[in-house]
Amino acid sequence: MKAHATEAEIQDVIKMVEALDYRAHVIRGVERSVVACVGEERGESHSLQHLESVAGVDRVMPVLRPFKLASREVRPEGSVINVGGVPIGGKRLAIIAGPCAVESGPQVEGAADAVKRAGGHLLRGGAYKPRTSPYSFQGMEDEGLLLLENAGRRVGLPVVTEIMDAHDIDLVADHADMLQVGARNAQNFSLLRRLGKVKNPILLKRGMSTRLEEFLMAAEYILSEGNPNVVLCERGIRTFETATRNTLDLNAVPLLKEWTHLPVIVDPSHGTGIWSLVTPMALASIAAGADGLLVEVHPDPRTALSDGPQQLKPERFAQLMAALAPVATAVGRSL
Amino acid sequence: MKAHATEAEIQDVIKMVEALDYRAHVIRGVERSVVACVGEERGESHSLQHLESVAGVDRVMPVLRPFKLASREVRPEGSVINVGGVPIGGKRLAIIAGPCAVESGPQVEGAADAVKRAGGHLLRGGAYKPRTSPYSFQGMEDEGLLLLENAGRRVGLPVVTEIMDAHDIDLVADHADMLQVGARNAQNFSLLRRLGKVKNPILLKRGMSTRLEEFLMAAEYILSEGNPNVVLCERGIRTFETATRNTLDLNAVPLLKEWTHLPVIVDPSHGTGIWSLVTPMALASIAAGADGLLVEVHPDPRTALSDGPQQLKPERFAQLMAALAPVATAVGRSL
Amino acid sequence: MKAHATEAEIQDVIKMVEALDYRAHVIRGVERSVVACVGEERGESHSLQHLESVAGVDRVMPVLRPFKLASREVRPEGSVINVGGVPIGGKRLAIIAGPCAVESGPQVEGAADAVKRAGGHLLRGGAYKPRTSPYSFQGMEDEGLLLLENAGRRVGLPVVTEIMDAHDIDLVADHADMLQVGARNAQNFSLLRRLGKVKNPILLKRGMSTRLEEFLMAAEYILSEGNPNVVLCERGIRTFETATRNTLDLNAVPLLKEWTHLPVIVDPSHGTGIWSLVTPMALASIAAGADGLLVEVHPDPRTALSDGPQQLKPERFAQLMAALAPVATAVGRSL
Amino acid sequence: MKAHATEAEIQDVIKMVEALDYRAHVIRGVERSVVACVGEERGESHSLQHLESVAGVDRVMPVLRPFKLASREVRPEGSVINVGGVPIGGKRLAIIAGPCAVESGPQVEGAADAVKRAGGHLLRGGAYKPRTSPYSFQGMEDEGLLLLENAGRRVGLPVVTEIMDAHDIDLVADHADMLQVGARNAQNFSLLRRLGKVKNPILLKRGMSTRLEEFLMAAEYILSEGNPNVVLCERGIRTFETATRNTLDLNAVPLLKEWTHLPVIVDPSHGTGIWSLVTPMALASIAAGADGLLVEVHPDPRTALSDGPQQLKPERFAQLMAALAPVATAVGRSL
Repeated sequence: MKAHATEAEIQDVIKMVEALDYRAHVIRGVERSVVACVGEERGESHSLQHLESVAGVDRVMPVLRPFKLASREVRPEGSVINVGGVPIGGKRLAIIAGPCAVESGPQVEGAADAVKRAGGHLLRGGAYKPRTSPYSFQGMEDEGLLLLENAGRRVGLPVVTEIMDAHDIDLVADHADMLQVGARNAQNFSLLRRLGKVKNPILLKRGMSTRLEEFLMAAEYILSEGNPNVVLCERGIRTFETATRNTLDLNAVPLLKEWTHLPVIVDPSHGTGIWSLVTPMALASIAAGADGLLVEVHPDPRTALSDGPQQLKPERFAQLMAALAPVATAVGRSL
Repeated sequence: MKAHATEAEIQDVIKMVEALDYRAHVIRGVERSVVACVGEERGESHSLQHLESVAGVDRVMPVLRPFKLASREVRPEGSVINVGGVPIGGKRLAIIAGPCAVESGPQVEGAADAVKRAGGHLLRGGAYKPRTSPYSFQGMEDEGLLLLENAGRRVGLPVVTEIMDAHDIDLVADHADMLQVGARNAQNFSLLRRLGKVKNPILLKRGMSTRLEEFLMAAEYILSEGNPNVVLCERGIRTFETATRNTLDLNAVPLLKEWTHLPVIVDPSHGTGIWSLVTPMALASIAAGADGLLVEVHPDPRTALSDGPQQLKPERFAQLMAALAPVATAVGRSL
Repeated sequence: MKAHATEAEIQDVIKMVEALDYRAHVIRGVERSVVACVGEERGESHSLQHLESVAGVDRVMPVLRPFKLASREVRPEGSVINVGGVPIGGKRLAIIAGPCAVESGPQVEGAADAVKRAGGHLLRGGAYKPRTSPYSFQGMEDEGLLLLENAGRRVGLPVVTEIMDAHDIDLVADHADMLQVGARNAQNFSLLRRLGKVKNPILLKRGMSTRLEEFLMAAEYILSEGNPNVVLCERGIRTFETATRNTLDLNAVPLLKEWTHLPVIVDPSHGTGIWSLVTPMALASIAAGADGLLVEVHPDPRTALSDGPQQLKPERFAQLMAALAPVATAVGRSL
Repeated sequence: MKAHATEAEIQDVIKMVEALDYRAHVIRGVERSVVACVGEERGESHSLQHLESVAGVDRVMPVLRPFKLASREVRPEGSVINVGGVPIGGKRLAIIAGPCAVESGPQVEGAADAVKRAGGHLLRGGAYKPRTSPYSFQGMEDEGLLLLENAGRRVGLPVVTEIMDAHDIDLVADHADMLQVGARNAQNFSLLRRLGKVKNPILLKRGMSTRLEEFLMAAEYILSEGNPNVVLCERGIRTFETATRNTLDLNAVPLLKEWTHLPVIVDPSHGTGIWSLVTPMALASIAAGADGLLVEVHPDPRTALSDGPQQLKPERFAQLMAALAPVATAVGRSL
């Protein structure tokens, strides 16, 4: 309550709180009083937050975190998600790699070979591309999806690809092992809800300005519709720093591991935007406790149709994997 | 080029630049050389940006802004968009007001009366609500849309409502005069592209972490698909400041007016999240040159199912309109 | 408390809370318990915040705002600060204008004439300049201070200048009417404390990443040392947006006016960094409720030694003042 | 130049550029022309940036990075800074640990023992504390400095302490091996300049909203006054994320190592604000290539007078050191 709230205002608030099925406790302080509200907020459509517009009320401060199915308390041992035979979330790290965008058969085949040879576990590649400009390359779409599927099948790697449009869900779910939600759709709740009805596991990227609590609420949209297989991906947030494309928020890794049972991986390619930073930040991600990586690998980044500056050449990806092995061991994980 | 780039590296870059149909000019400086690239970048799928992964290259710096159809140069006098008979972008301000969410017939009718009585020009109301939590009230959906349409028709105000799912476009386009794209879908390119094929004008809100250049590129998605009727809405960005729900970036108003011919309005309700700041920031928006406002008005904010703390009571909205009139006059506009 | 906190942990916390001279109330909720602590936090060196490292404790959430002398409750009618005969904080707006840096006698005299002629009330000019680069012009220092004083005295305007070093306080206090603390020193607590012992009024700028609560705590440093004459200045915060130099946070104006009795002015020159945005944002500032402006005016911005792109030419400053008059009237203020 | 700049405007700009001792090259593009300016910007007081206020000019874009003495090019092999016999920047990591604030003799002695026992290399402790509130504990000041010095001497660890006020430099330089500049003084240029004349090495922390380029310019202030011994410290930046106290920007580590020869260490205590995240982020920092750590260790964090929630107990610090050893080895470093 405000400092000068009257007793009548306090009693009014108590009545409203009780009408919403909460119990109200008044704590009278030196300068102002606090009305503590005890009850079950999460499933309710009436939020106490609206009391902020009531006379005498200063602020409404929620105490409980709002996620439920994503909460660590639900499964303290942590979830292991199976993606086409590859477990994500266990002792073994999951390395997902491949080109930003599928650009041609030879390109994706070359990338698949490079990923397989260096010891990667899953193949990624964008068929439908979210691009800031409508004039940029938008992806090979359905054709790209099939090229990716074939490349993965040939080398024996499950494939991951981004879904941008609910319209494409059935097709993509048939041809890809895991569906990725990109940062720009991180709060596209219509899409999230539909992905909750799909059988494939979902790779959910954090949005550029999504707080960790909101990130878990986005996962909660998928979980609450019946799909329990969600992997979270930190990919950098937008800050004032312009020297890197994004600011990779590795704090998110150990904090999410405390809050949720869902596996957490990191994308150091988008998280930095600069190829020379990808390997050091990949090592840092694993040292921080991540369950895996999402890395962009392209047979020839100079000719890439999107995000060239952050894609690794095959030999550099092989170097990353070689550098990663001892770090994984040092933190009790394996490749 | 990097400081120690060799002549061979410079010549390599020149060859690549020319292969991409740009002219290359080398400028030799005291410490390093610069390769200036002259050509038409916008419509190309090959971006020069990828040269950042080439040996000897330090950085690629674009000089031109990437938007084209949205550019002020296309229509220096500015666009006026007609929404159900109400012009947005001319001398007269356009005030769009109504509840955050349609909650019931009496609620939206009460709001419509309040908006009409105080001199508002368009009625807003959310039928499909993007909510951070899947457990919060998600809107009355189709039923809410019809209630909104009826309320608007009764009082003679065109209606504006948010579209969240491409699946709903036909229905919403039939029953609402203007379709709003919310902040969380500001870079949902699939949705934007489809709205480019709709006849209704589009109210495009800036995303929470969308730079102004990207905001105009999002508009460009709609424009380039054939729908020229886009109104931009500044609604606050996400920053480190936690005292307000968002940081209303009014700098965006005069800057967008320099860069684009599209009308620009401001949403001080989401931009502040606190009802007592709505009126001062509404006045400030108009003083900064905005073409209109989007304001949340609810007959009884204490009972609101979403965003109660930022919605105005009818009498406060009437006070806002009364305070606005002299400010509008002071900057050469009318209500 | 955490969800699985034991009764013993709760009792431990209660003991610690009481040992710190607070009363403890336990509220037992559905999923977890809350220990409410009632007492006087502000003057204490022991903060309850440290309890976050105690077993069973999840989070410590403060309810009261920490500023005291700056609080609106102390003087609900608001403070009016007298600067060399010019009141700041009353019905009449205070317009402070002048060059970013004092560069020469003729330059500051030219600026003083321009400010006086257009109706400005105080003359600003930097003698000691905080520059990002040690190789940039650092100001004319003591000589610049005297040139500024002379220029102000000649045209009859009190002068304002920035203080960067505690070492200069006595000299600057003798020759300037008001001392400005720049954004980079907004949390230089040694300097603030010393300015609390000075007789001159202080113009305190918000830091680039200072939250409003911290801004008032910085003012509290000055007030608590005995200097009651502090004017707050919003000058833009640092965000992800790069199209403008800073993001001018006008939400701060009405919110600060609710929280504190201190006058609040706005610097649209630094807040935008672009001269063509200065006038619209000046009008917006006053419409939002600011008590005045700090505007950069230079006789010839093309030759300015610092911040050229944001300084106004004399004729543009005169246009700003002309445009401002009707807006001031519209919100019940005068020039 | 702007799209519609006239030839006369272009010629005017060329004349001004040449008058500033740059060579001007005009590049004529499809839509607009660019005037490339070649010359030595760094040491000049006249910046080309001011041309932004000249007719016909759209933007001025600097190409060169502005730091010089801090640049990697000056010493490609990297600097190793000697602090009381402990090298920072070589193969061996430097672990600086100790309490946030010196609170009493027994407390700092207990911390010194804990740091020494676990294998730390330098002892930190704050004698003069920058606190957001003037009512919080401000440090034991001179007395605390002597307690710290004694504790370090007894266990054989050089000591590091923060300097807040130029007035204290001589005393602190006499009693501490290394002087720390805190985040709030990261752009207190008066202080930096004076520290350039001191013999002791300086530990310079990044400001909460300091871009990496500005961070190196702050170091340049110290270097250019004659003190070559600067160690940089990433300690988290301020972003929209509120789940952690700051966002630790580990991207800064490999990027700074590319840009500068100065050693780079990381403070995971301030960078997270949560003790349980300190160890994972310490491991991540070293994996990313940091030359050392700054960690808060307190014999009894529950009683700490400042920053309790982020300080480690002695046994947890020992666990951190034990976990760190194999990660250091994995990236070719030693403890």
